[in-house]
Amino acid sequence: MNYTDATAEQIHALMEAAYTASVAFRKVPLQQRAALMYAIADTLENSGDALIHTAMAETHLPEARLRGERGRTIFQLRSYADATVQGDWLEARIDTANAEKVPAKPDIRKMLVGIGPVVVFGSSNFPFAYSTAGGDTATALAAGCPVIVKAHPAHPQTSQMVADMIHAAVAACGLPAAVFTHVHGASFEVGQALVLHPRTKAVGFTGSFAGGKALFDLANQRKEPIPVFAEMGSVNPVYLLPEKLAGDAVSIANAYAGSITLGVGQFCTNPGILVGIKGSALVNFATALATAVAAIPAGNMLHAGIQKAYVAKRAAALAQQGITLLAAGLESADDAQAVATIATVDAATFLHNPLLHQEVFGPFSLLVQCADEQELLAVAHAMEGQLTSTVMGTENDLQSHAALLDAIAEKCGRFILNGVPTGVEVCHAMHHGGPFPATTDSRFTSVGADAIKRFARPIAYQSWPDHWLPAELQNANPLQLLRSINGQLSKDAIA
Amino acid sequence: MNYTDATAEQIHALMEAAYTASVAFRKVPLQQRAALMYAIADTLENSGDALIHTAMAETHLPEARLRGERGRTIFQLRSYADATVQGDWLEARIDTANAEKVPAKPDIRKMLVGIGPVVVFGSSNFPFAYSTAGGDTATALAAGCPVIVKAHPAHPQTSQMVADMIHAAVAACGLPAAVFTHVHGASFEVGQALVLHPRTKAVGFTGSFAGGKALFDLANQRKEPIPVFAEMGSVNPVYLLPEKLAGDAVSIANAYAGSITLGVGQFCTNPGILVGIKGSALVNFATALATAVAAIPAGNMLHAGIQKAYVAKRAAALAQQGITLLAAGLESADDAQAVATIATVDAATFLHNPLLHQEVFGPFSLLVQCADEQELLAVAHAMEGQLTSTVMGTENDLQSHAALLDAIAEKCGRFILNGVPTGVEVCHAMHHGGPFPATTDSRFTSVGADAIKRFARPIAYQSWPDHWLPAELQNANPLQLLRSINGQLSKDAIA
Repeated sequence: MNYTDATAEQIHALMEAAYTASVAFRKVPLQQRAALMYAIADTLENSGDALIHTAMAETHLPEARLRGERGRTIFQLRSYADATVQGDWLEARIDTANAEKVPAKPDIRKMLVGIGPVVVFGSSNFPFAYSTAGGDTATALAAGCPVIVKAHPAHPQTSQMVADMIHAAVAACGLPAAVFTHVHGASFEVGQALVLHPRTKAVGFTGSFAGGKALFDLANQRKEPIPVFAEMGSVNPVYLLPEKLAGDAVSIANAYAGSITLGVGQFCTNPGILVGIKGSALVNFATALATAVAAIPAGNMLHAGIQKAYVAKRAAALAQQGITLLAAGLESADDAQAVATIATVDAATFLHNPLLHQEVFGPFSLLVQCADEQELLAVAHAMEGQLTSTVMGTENDLQSHAALLDAIAEKCGRFILNGVPTGVEVCHAMHHGGPFPATTDSRFTSVGADAIKRFARPIAYQSWPDHWLPAELQNANPLQLLRSINGQLSKDAIA
Repeated sequence: MNYTDATAEQIHALMEAAYTASVAFRKVPLQQRAALMYAIADTLENSGDALIHTAMAETHLPEARLRGERGRTIFQLRSYADATVQGDWLEARIDTANAEKVPAKPDIRKMLVGIGPVVVFGSSNFPFAYSTAGGDTATALAAGCPVIVKAHPAHPQTSQMVADMIHAAVAACGLPAAVFTHVHGASFEVGQALVLHPRTKAVGFTGSFAGGKALFDLANQRKEPIPVFAEMGSVNPVYLLPEKLAGDAVSIANAYAGSITLGVGQFCTNPGILVGIKGSALVNFATALATAVAAIPAGNMLHAGIQKAYVAKRAAALAQQGITLLAAGLESADDAQAVATIATVDAATFLHNPLLHQEVFGPFSLLVQCADEQELLAVAHAMEGQLTSTVMGTENDLQSHAALLDAIAEKCGRFILNGVPTGVEVCHAMHHGGPFPATTDSRFTSVGADAIKRFARPIAYQSWPDHWLPAELQNANPLQLLRSINGQLSKDAIA
């Protein structure tokens, strides 16, 4: 099926409609926003095989993975709906008046409200969970923001099918149609026009550094700059500490062979750099990793563009001076399949070649071999901001690497001990974010209920009578929210 | 006294020292950070008259105001210290492991940590409360970030005296000296070098639009963009609704004559635009306002640059087509004193002249006269983002202006009913922020404990044993924090 790019006129009209909807939707009760999210989850749950088959054809992702991802998307919508109603994200704070203070202290009550229309760019690697009805859409709706999704051009039909379900859910919930808008746009101009439109108040993006940074720059060049949360991936370094590696080289190698090649390496938390200190344990690890990866079949990547980029970036990395190919997975007769690859380099070379610090999106990882502890620390300091960093270490390893742990923590959003970074649990404590260039703002996450705060801003009401306040801030606490009252959290009503 | 601008070499050295301090300070216990803030408050409290006299000489602010502002600064430091220890701002969230889930759910624990060295630009209009030991410094220290203050060149000696007190407090608390650094810089190059230095991780600024926007643009053009919270002031519009005005024209006029000229109009929440509907009530209001303002003496502004800008911007406003001078305060033989000024214009002219929407920093306000309700609404929609907006209205007024209230709320950070915007209470529910151009990020505040969050980012720890976790996230909850445990807030220990 062919979809045509939205025109400038269409974009203007839909953004104006989204603005009008935002005025009403900002005030729609939390319960009703949650009902919409539940309704979307329900239609997704009942969407049957056609959606899965369409996504399989468009993304080359396997059926089980897509069914799992749909399930995750449904779970996200429901858990964010629950969080919406629970209302901790509102940061409701009430300071009651005090006439005896000099000067008199007025009654002030604050809560978060939707920032306005949010433009969401569907990602290529998660056609459900980070696309049309994905985390950005769910959290923007939770905040009370109309959402405008630009379908990823690699899976327009999947996106359109999900959009149609959302449209139906919006209508069934009796909400203005412009609470959700879906546009197609294969050209950069469509995205640009959406980000630059004065009615757009925030942007959510998951994808490449080049794409996210371009949108961030556009947004900051507006007359009225707007926040862009772009999750741009990272190399998710893994630090292999000596005692742990000496004890577990083979099992760590096998776990990482799986993590590096999971989903043809197309996860934003894919471990793209492994770092260890030269010695027999690292040789054993490298040998076991090479053996495991050599047996892994080539796989279809999401679309031709990504496959082409993988081939080019892999070749560029392998062409660098001092790089050695350590292992390649099984080749395929099909040119469109990506071959799993492990390369290796010594740390001195790595430290002097910025290209090697960049992500090769796909089933690729670089083993950086350090001469000693000093080089290991230098590598950690040289890393850019990351979504995740992982340490493989025993208690003794941790005890003897305090400075390394500090250096790693400074550069990452999630710090994992003795695990693999792939797999992003949807839960309150999850942080899926990190210092630039992992994301454009290290203070926010795109997974977990805190992701709602990307799309909300505080407003304080001063000296308003109770019946003019939003229900969230009224004396009786009709929504039974946990609120800060003169600095103390409680669900109490105010006398 | 003369102070010399910091050189590029000095800035590099101090930023490197601040970075080194940040590694340690990020992990300094909350109680110890609070102790530092208390120590700074104590030295300020005992600073005696010399500081006040120096500030009087440098800022032309009256003694009572400066004593009051020092008191506010002490109060801020102590209340933010209390909030630091209480720890709600940490957003501590714990999700415990669940081995039965498929795939198994790991233990994940998240909290906010200091973002790194923070550069704070002292403001001219609050030499204590928004300068060297002001709100930005206090909240950055609370977050665990070293602070580098650039003294405002209009009050360098005041800034140096306060800095010396902070240096002493840092030493007395046994913290690394580079937790707080103070530099002078009359040239733009000093500020530029501080914002562009790769070790700088965030910026706090209170001042003009031109100054804040320049820093924001610099920060976004870095290889690694960093967040800038710039509070750039606003015109703080006041909407005078018909029934209220008919009943209270004179008392409202008197209250606003005071608010407009308070502190020679040098508050960021100074009401610079008043909006009403033409008619006898508005005539009465204008007459009473003119009478009251005509009796107000001219006053010394903070420094020659601000005085010069006031004279120029006032003249430019008064020179616009369709503008009438409604009232001028008492003139002064001293050219360096600012004359209070009320001008008026009809809404049609206002709507078509963007210059009239801009702040004239000082004791100036523009009365915008609307032909009817439609024009009143159009003016509200035409406003830029504001720190505050105020409605003067009776219950009937509010009932009959629903669309207006929506339009106003959309554009402001604090929404006041029947009061004046000057006066910013330091309390949990205060929001001192607002949509651009009031600030560079509508999602943050510079007053209240939530201001800490400007300088903190989440980090999630996955699968770490208890004794490796920060105290904030340990099972026993040794700091007695309110934490989200599997989605429920509690102070419980974890079994």
